Amino acid sequence: MTHPAAFYRGDRHFAVGTMPARQPGPGEVAIDVAYVGICGTDLHVFHGNMDARVGKNRVIGHEMSGTVAEVGPDAGDFVPGERVVVRPLHPCGSCPTCKAGHAHICQNLKFLGLDTDGAMQGRWIVPAFTLHRLPEGLSLEVAALVEPLAVAVHDVRRARLKAGETVLVIGGGPIGMLIAMVAQAEGANVILSEINQNRLDMAAAMGVEGLNPREVNVAEAVHERTGGAGADVVFEVSGTQPGVDLMTDAVRARGRIVMVAIHAKKAEVDLFRFFWREVEMLGARVYEPQDYDRAIAMLAEGLPVGRLITDRYPLAEVQAAFEALDGNPTAMKTLIQIGGAA
Amino acid sequence: MTHPAAFYRGDRHFAVGTMPARQPGPGEVAIDVAYVGICGTDLHVFHGNMDARVGKNRVIGHEMSGTVAEVGPDAGDFVPGERVVVRPLHPCGSCPTCKAGHAHICQNLKFLGLDTDGAMQGRWIVPAFTLHRLPEGLSLEVAALVEPLAVAVHDVRRARLKAGETVLVIGGGPIGMLIAMVAQAEGANVILSEINQNRLDMAAAMGVEGLNPREVNVAEAVHERTGGAGADVVFEVSGTQPGVDLMTDAVRARGRIVMVAIHAKKAEVDLFRFFWREVEMLGARVYEPQDYDRAIAMLAEGLPVGRLITDRYPLAEVQAAFEALDGNPTAMKTLIQIGGAA
Ligand SMILES: [Zn+2]
Ligand SMILES: [Zn+2]
Ligand SMILES: [Zn+2]
Ligand SMILES: [Zn+2]
Repeated sequence: MTHPAAFYRGDRHFAVGTMPARQPGPGEVAIDVAYVGICGTDLHVFHGNMDARVGKNRVIGHEMSGTVAEVGPDAGDFVPGERVVVRPLHPCGSCPTCKAGHAHICQNLKFLGLDTDGAMQGRWIVPAFTLHRLPEGLSLEVAALVEPLAVAVHDVRRARLKAGETVLVIGGGPIGMLIAMVAQAEGANVILSEINQNRLDMAAAMGVEGLNPREVNVAEAVHERTGGAGADVVFEVSGTQPGVDLMTDAVRARGRIVMVAIHAKKAEVDLFRFFWREVEMLGARVYEPQDYDRAIAMLAEGLPVGRLITDRYPLAEVQAAFEALDGNPTAMKTLIQIGGAA
Repeated sequence: MTHPAAFYRGDRHFAVGTMPARQPGPGEVAIDVAYVGICGTDLHVFHGNMDARVGKNRVIGHEMSGTVAEVGPDAGDFVPGERVVVRPLHPCGSCPTCKAGHAHICQNLKFLGLDTDGAMQGRWIVPAFTLHRLPEGLSLEVAALVEPLAVAVHDVRRARLKAGETVLVIGGGPIGMLIAMVAQAEGANVILSEINQNRLDMAAAMGVEGLNPREVNVAEAVHERTGGAGADVVFEVSGTQPGVDLMTDAVRARGRIVMVAIHAKKAEVDLFRFFWREVEMLGARVYEPQDYDRAIAMLAEGLPVGRLITDRYPLAEVQAAFEALDGNPTAMKTLIQIGGAA
């Protein structure tokens, strides 16, 4: 028995082949994968930037939904047919960070779909502790967005956001857009700063107000709308130097900046502003179990994130999916449909 | 009636002269000043860096102790002879930051001794709301250190420090030294990073362990002592790029960095580390009333900060005091004695 799988072979190339079947071992569950989203990290893999970490024979994919197919010994009370998503974090349990209760940022974290084979295959075997059940009525297609939505939920939770607060989101890619939607759902007044007009249009269609920093002084606009105070919370999701300049210019005294973006190199930061206005900055990475629970609940309550799905491809066309997404300014979220491609 | 006063005249020059007497107005109290400490900000004034703000006819000084001399109408229940210190902040009360309850960092804050005349004079008239009473048994000399100690208390409070935590203080000037002492008094294990051997010796004499980053890899040392975790709290008090590099290298996952230093220009900050380890940074500036209360209580309980007083001058020798302090690696805290100089 085999099942189909997409293997990253290096140099912007995927090969679709087959994976030999195996039984789930102790504590493991086998999942029939339904949908897999392509994430910015997957694009980094595609670009060859993560070869040292993932190698050249890796099945990637970590934003997914599926159905329990087989349950190994000592893997809890899961039963075949249950619809689930995977929280793709495998912490070590013994490092200082795990011991301090922050296993999601374990110092030896294995990320499923990067450090181990991931979801771009027909059947995926994962530790049972990574599973979250889906409620009735939540489609598997929309559920493939639980993972990125949980990132946004975690970011908003780190911000200690309160209803009525003014939020500036810098950068309107999928995560920035999801943060804007979650913050708005929590009762915040949200402004999105984004230079790409397609993304601003998509935000507008979702009811999120956008400003283009190439046309408007966003910091001034934020101060005007807040009676000279500034934004209560700023999410820096752009990973750019102008984004880092804007975050300190726009935030209010005692306001909170959440550092969501991956800044590959050191950025110039206005530390005087941190001192002068007693600004707070909080790093935020991935998610904790409660963020998954909350993301699932928000989807079940109808948060319209399904609108972010702009493209769909069968597994057999994974190469075309990555090529189409790469640098496409109108694409937001691409899903790979696995079941139908088997 | 006149009283003696030291006027900053620009270009590293003080002139000692006299100030005409006036009665305290409504809500005001006149204080016979006993001691005034020279702060880093005062040295900035001396260097001519703050001429635009202070002008060239300013009486400076804001770290002080004294005795109530005269009480204006509607100035509370103060009585002549009471020993007091001044919390030299005059907030506007109406800006968004004041309204949000953070008057100590008011957007229109007047700092007494910079924006108005300060304590380097025989009799100082201040708003009654700036006064804190001193307990019996606390000398006026030691009480002149309440203001910088309150800065340290505020910084430690912003850090949400718990007993048993490991603290790294980067920079061993007066404020860094006071932070180290306060953190140690709160039950923390404190390491001070400082390049000046005289300051390391003074720290050792206070029971604070120091490391010289020119001789030791301080981040490695911190990780070794914490089983690979890193420091729970880092105070950046150096105002230098190496200090900013060290702060992110040394802090643990979910650890807290308190930004105490004034970074006159933007610094290069490892924002990836903030993201990756979910690090938190908190700006901390001046103090709130409870920080003054706590600083006074700590001095009354015997925190030996009096040892930081390395030099004493009468008001008549204020010029010599500034010249001696300027760039002197062995000086820590210089006091100007006002009473005896009258
Ligand atoms: Zn991802
Ligand atoms: Zn771990
Ligand atoms: Zn000062
Ligand atoms: Zn104010």
